[in-house]
Amino acid sequence: MTVQPFSFQLLNRQGRARAGIFHTPHGDLPTPVFAPVGTQASVKAITPAQLIELDANLILSNTYHLYLRPGDELIAELGGLHEFMHWQRPILTDSGGFQVFSLAEKRSIDPDGVTFRSHIDGSINRLTPEKATQIQEHLGADIIMAFDECAPPYDRSQIEQAMEHTHSWAERCLQSKSRNDQALFGIVQGGIFPDLRENSARFISDLNFPGNAIGGLSVGETKAEMQTVLEIMDDVLPQEKPRYLMGVGTPEDLINGVLRGVDIFDCVLPTRLARHNAAMTWQGGRLNLVNSSFAKDPLPIDGDCQCYTCQHFSRAYLRHLIMAKEMLAATLLSIHNLHALIQLVRDIRQAIVDQTLDAFLLKYSQLIDTKNGDFTKDLID
Amino acid sequence: MTVQPFSFQLLNRQGRARAGIFHTPHGDLPTPVFAPVGTQASVKAITPAQLIELDANLILSNTYHLYLRPGDELIAELGGLHEFMHWQRPILTDSGGFQVFSLAEKRSIDPDGVTFRSHIDGSINRLTPEKATQIQEHLGADIIMAFDECAPPYDRSQIEQAMEHTHSWAERCLQSKSRNDQALFGIVQGGIFPDLRENSARFISDLNFPGNAIGGLSVGETKAEMQTVLEIMDDVLPQEKPRYLMGVGTPEDLINGVLRGVDIFDCVLPTRLARHNAAMTWQGGRLNLVNSSFAKDPLPIDGDCQCYTCQHFSRAYLRHLIMAKEMLAATLLSIHNLHALIQLVRDIRQAIVDQTLDAFLLKYSQLIDTKNGDFTKDLID
Repeated sequence: MTVQPFSFQLLNRQGRARAGIFHTPHGDLPTPVFAPVGTQASVKAITPAQLIELDANLILSNTYHLYLRPGDELIAELGGLHEFMHWQRPILTDSGGFQVFSLAEKRSIDPDGVTFRSHIDGSINRLTPEKATQIQEHLGADIIMAFDECAPPYDRSQIEQAMEHTHSWAERCLQSKSRNDQALFGIVQGGIFPDLRENSARFISDLNFPGNAIGGLSVGETKAEMQTVLEIMDDVLPQEKPRYLMGVGTPEDLINGVLRGVDIFDCVLPTRLARHNAAMTWQGGRLNLVNSSFAKDPLPIDGDCQCYTCQHFSRAYLRHLIMAKEMLAATLLSIHNLHALIQLVRDIRQAIVDQTLDAFLLKYSQLIDTKNGDFTKDLID
Repeated sequence: MTVQPFSFQLLNRQGRARAGIFHTPHGDLPTPVFAPVGTQASVKAITPAQLIELDANLILSNTYHLYLRPGDELIAELGGLHEFMHWQRPILTDSGGFQVFSLAEKRSIDPDGVTFRSHIDGSINRLTPEKATQIQEHLGADIIMAFDECAPPYDRSQIEQAMEHTHSWAERCLQSKSRNDQALFGIVQGGIFPDLRENSARFISDLNFPGNAIGGLSVGETKAEMQTVLEIMDDVLPQEKPRYLMGVGTPEDLINGVLRGVDIFDCVLPTRLARHNAAMTWQGGRLNLVNSSFAKDPLPIDGDCQCYTCQHFSRAYLRHLIMAKEMLAATLLSIHNLHALIQLVRDIRQAIVDQTLDAFLLKYSQLIDTKNGDFTKDLID
């Protein structure tokens, strides 16, 4: 009943990789998909019109931040997050759990929820599964997340307790949910421990969410550990529902994830790198545009890139904007970096549809970190 | 010979106000026109695509700043300012004179030029009429300015000496100019003294520049003094050439100037106000969007405004962006404020074409500061 407006359609597969469409009340989401992050209801330095031009299909916003400022009730009064930030395509909100554990001060966790001090004004706040769900219903995103606890990846006893909380809270989120135009996703935890991950994936799968998320990765574990966990996820989580790998990531991680059956990704990386003057390229790695070698460089960031920035501006101009502390630098670099990741995921999706992942991996071979073993071979051969 | 690619065509007049077209190598400039300022080869927080959407027809960039960083020779190597900043419509560069007197440290003026310390790195630099012209030829703007000296408006003896320098330098700029695809404008000085202004306007007019600029206003004088000077300018400067009022201004100053025969304006006001969280409106004056009264305000900045910001975003959202220190605030407010001034000047131009300035002034009556006397009446009745 509650998942009526959502359905997931698999179009094609190659190895574990999947190309599909997730139908939502704000339109169809082609998967795999990379979601730019608009933490505070704004993808930093970018207008919604520029995001449309980039053909971003999904953006992520942040329950913890919006609850503290400007407040979820205010956003509800103003018509919800889509209206508030003028974004009519699908939105995903995380549950706030990750930020409570990474940003808030003086947090105290109990089986019922978490009490913490706001990082903005020091006020005491409390999030429970019910409260996190209510906030996300006020915000009105298409995809909302169960409240979870993310513990450091190697501490088994802490991971076990966090997983217990996460499982109990997942049930309570399901029970407290009242809107049927939002898809609530469950979150799998379990650190780097295969048995815990399998246990968690089974538990969350059994709750029959319309989609499942993989939390607690990209938090300090090795690439090989992440790959192992993702393969367990692909074996256990239902094939017919979308999988979301939270907070990931680098171009390599995206490929890594898609090759292991992940459908949805989000990460602050492209816009954060942009604000630190770094441009993503596939042939030359990351360019630090502060470098004086770019002072007279007439070339675009990437000669093969079709983004607005690469079509019109030289590295020399971008470096000038950075040296002159012009805000336009962050905007133009964000446009490029977002385009790079969105296009990468668009390309891999097309390769899955066309059954040409081998050619895709050859084209992007520079991206693949063979130091950790070429993780791609066994998956599509 | 040197002005061949430029011609100025008057379409209609009402009172002293003029509607025309200034033909340039980068396209036709409908006048009156308001030029957004891109001091360092970037209109702050705005992409060229957004400026085109605003239908900005002319932008101003800054000789002093670009000479110091990234260097005019670098910009020339990269194809000139149009190519460097990706702006294919007309560009105007000022001569650097004003900034030498307002920004540079330890300046020393002599009849040949000015020696000063860079405000960026403390290096010693020297600008002369020949050097300022050479820099502007490297930059390659369509309209370039003679090197002038701008003195405080009330000090007669200092004004007299600055005017002498300005006149001698204007002749030297004309002589040193070598490109014929740039229109060099002369600059009238003379502070608030009618006899000096008349003297300066006659001297500059006699040099037969393709256009004339009015410098040294909006630097501390009263509105009435500015109006008096502008009326002298209209009487003395040739009618068949465009007039440019430098660094002006407020909405009231624009109307004031157009009603006294000015064709071109530039000012940092709209983008600077935007970065200080202020939005220009005609009915309600300036809105300071930090004000808590806007926290839940679902209205746009201006319900009558057709700009991207007003069409899609509430005051509450803009205030949220400001409180959350999101860069998007400056972008969206800059779009609105630039639209407001560009539209104001577009409207007054249309009114001159249609001979309906009376109706225009009635519509914008809120803008007119009657404390200083209703300066409009005698001009168009």
